[in-house]
Formats: sequence, C-alpha cells, structure tokens
Amino acid sequence: MNNYKLTIQYDGARYKGWQRLGNNDNTIQGKIENVLTELAGEKIEIIGSSRTDAGVHAYEQIANFKMKKNSTEEEVMQYLNRYLPNDISVVDVTLEHERFHARYNAKDKTYVYKIWNEQYPHPFMRKYSMHVEEKLDIEKMRQASQYFLGKHDFTSFSNAKSKKKSMVREIYSLEINENEGFIEIRIRGNGFLYNMVRKIVGTLIEVGLGEKDAATIPSIIESKERIQTGRMADAQGLYLEKVGF
Amino acid sequence: MNNYKLTIQYDGARYKGWQRLGNNDNTIQGKIENVLTELAGEKIEIIGSSRTDAGVHAYEQIANFKMKKNSTEEEVMQYLNRYLPNDISVVDVTLEHERFHARYNAKDKTYVYKIWNEQYPHPFMRKYSMHVEEKLDIEKMRQASQYFLGKHDFTSFSNAKSKKKSMVREIYSLEINENEGFIEIRIRGNGFLYNMVRKIVGTLIEVGLGEKDAATIPSIIESKERIQTGRMADAQGLYLEKVGF
Repeated sequence: MNNYKLTIQYDGARYKGWQRLGNNDNTIQGKIENVLTELAGEKIEIIGSSRTDAGVHAYEQIANFKMKKNSTEEEVMQYLNRYLPNDISVVDVTLEHERFHARYNAKDKTYVYKIWNEQYPHPFMRKYSMHVEEKLDIEKMRQASQYFLGKHDFTSFSNAKSKKKSMVREIYSLEINENEGFIEIRIRGNGFLYNMVRKIVGTLIEVGLGEKDAATIPSIIESKERIQTGRMADAQGLYLEKVGF
Repeated sequence: MNNYKLTIQYDGARYKGWQRLGNNDNTIQGKIENVLTELAGEKIEIIGSSRTDAGVHAYEQIANFKMKKNSTEEEVMQYLNRYLPNDISVVDVTLEHERFHARYNAKDKTYVYKIWNEQYPHPFMRKYSMHVEEKLDIEKMRQASQYFLGKHDFTSFSNAKSKKKSMVREIYSLEINENEGFIEIRIRGNGFLYNMVRKIVGTLIEVGLGEKDAATIPSIIESKERIQTGRMADAQGLYLEKVGF
C-alpha cells in the first residue's frame, strides 16, 4: 500500500466544511475522495489534519490516503487537479512512510482570521474577510489575546456537541497584526474545538469595539458556560494556514 | 456647483463595464449615477477616466461629477458606500476646482494583467486572474514587449468600432514581473483602444508559449489588420491600476 500525503488549498465558501457527512454531500473531503476513488479503482478514504467548518478556507490543509495502485506523486496531483472543482487545489503530493497519519501526527495548527477594518467594503476581499467598519482598538485586542494563551478548558468558546471528550486545548501563540487595512489574527495551538477560533475572534472584536472589557475573559473561560461568550466571527474570514508535524 | 472627484475600486465580474449604455443597465457608471442622483435630488452624470470593458476590474478608477448640493466629501463617500453594492467601493472623495475633468485631464493610465502560471488552479484568485497551466517563457515575453513601446497605430490590437477617430496611442512602459506564481504584466500609456490591453496580453501569452515569434510583432502592428492578431486574454485578469494627472 502506498501512503500519499496531500497539501490542499481551498475556498470553503461553497462547501459544508471539510468532513464528509454522507456519501454524496458537498464537503471537501467528499469531493477529493470521489476523485481518488475513480483514480484508484477502489474505495478511498482520506484523513485530514483539521476539520474546517462550513465556509472556512484553507491555505494549507494536509491529508493522507492509502492506495494499492502505484501512481507517481505527479500523476496523483495531475489527476486531482484535473477532476476537482477549481475552488479546491492540490498544491503538493508526496509519498510518505506507511505510518504517516495526517491527524495523529499533526502537532499544531495555525489559523489566520482576516478582518477588513475600513469604512468602505473591499471589492476583491469581500468574500474572503469579515468587514468591520468601526475602527478596532488593536492594543486592547492584544491585551485580551494574552488571556487565551496556554492550556484551558475551552467549553465556553466552542459549540462542540460531545461532552465526553476533553475540552482542554493549548494555545501556543496569538498574534494580531495590521496590514494595509486588514487586521490579521493568527492563532496557533495543539488543536481547536468546533467553532473555537471564530468564538475567540468574535470576543476579540467585541473588545476592540469597546463592548467588552479584556479583563473579563479569564472568568468567561473559567465559567465553562457558552452563554457567557458573545458573537462568533463569520466563517468567510477564517483560513487554516499551516499544520505542523 | 461643487466638483467632486471620486476614487473608485471595483470587482468588474458582474458588470457590463464602466460606461452607462441605457438608463437601467448593469454598468458601474450607471450604478454610481443612480446613487448620486438620489443624494443630489437632481440628475447626476459622472465622467470616468477610463472606460473599462465588461468584466474588467479597477484598483483605482477616477471619476468626477458636479452637484448643486453642498455635501461634504465625507458625506458623499459615506452615502455612496452605504447604497452601492459591495463589489463597488468609493475609497476617496475630494473637492476639486470647477474645471477638473477626469477624462480630459488624465495624462496616462496603468493597467495590470494577472496570469496565474502554475499547473494547479488558485482557489482564491480563480476569478481574479487568468490561469495558464503551461510554463510561460518570460524572457521571450519581455523581448516581445519592447515592440509595443512608443507611438503606434494600434488598429490590429483593438476591436474599436469607430474608424473615424485616431487609432494612434503611445505606450510609455510595459513591464513583466513574476510574483509567487503570478506573472504580472503592467502597461502604461496615454490611452488604450477597446480591448487593446487584452489583445496585447493575449499576444504576449502566445509568445510565452512559443506559438508566436516575438519578431513578428512589428509587422502585425504595421499591417493594421485585426485578423493578424491572435488570442485575446480574459477580462477577469485585467485591472485598471492607476490614472495619472
């Protein structure tokens, strides 16, 4: 069995997220599996590093799959790019040792959230960022961001359904930068719960607008009550940027 | 009468180009005039520097209009951005002396054309660039670009309908740069005929693919026959980048 690693870029706007739900649903995993099953002549399942939510984009999602057929890396890449819709792109394919696993071996994930913070809309990025017209106070957002660092139970910053699994995640870094009218929030951690990045970003926006005080964040985390958290940032501004191994 | 200058950015994908054709057509000029007529309480006509074709974008289109009402620059800008669709954005408004004219006073225009030159599609730029999978020979394209410089009758590189007006235009510069998988062709001149930039770019692509020899360009220009020119590059890769005064 050959074990292939895929590096995938996608515009998530049209999809119900990464994870396949049924057999013919509109998910990124489903689209890729359908094409690979055609190539392989056998049912192929792929393992993704990160389950991006509906509407979320990826600059660099990693996935792997096993196949009996001996296709070269180049053949797999060409076949996928030929038959996938053009909002999903395979930018690299490599053969890995048989034990490589895109999810278990992933050590950290970096997401970036883009906010367009000008009065006027951005014609080219209007579907790829969140538009906040009122000027955000970045210094306040940076102060608030410090409270998320480290290991916490993030129940109050998630819409995860399961209560059996651990809600503890560790955030390694959270940086906020301005770049030509955009505010980019870059967050790296060992993993993220369902909707967690968008809820953290939404809270940082509330702080930046002066609607919420940064100092209240520790008690929101400690409460483990979802009702305490405020807005959730739009999916269209969020990108999976990198998976570390 | 106040004379306002607008700096406008737009995603041209949904529009039939800049220039208003009828009263309720889907043009950028028409959309802006409709909003300004509401603001002014009188019929407003705007003058654009450049008549971008259907599907062509603008980073910086310039226009002016006269209005009796004494609105501040800030009021005009806010009103426009509030009522225009969000693929048209007014990024600046200034009051000018009464003789300022966006078309007559424009000295030069710069267009940029973006080609995505990788095997795989670009998920985020697929609607904002032209995808050419085969590697282009940039050195050959640069050699070819030299023949367009200076003053020429560009009849063979245009689909302009009128044969009465002069087809002579002067090209000041034509630069080709690579930038992270994109090839950007930047062309500055005193004006451009209908479809002229796209026909020049299309010819440069043919040269880059080895389909056409750079040395044949002077004779194509001299022939003044449209049948001599080859492909026309897609509208979606073209942007009006700057208007010089």
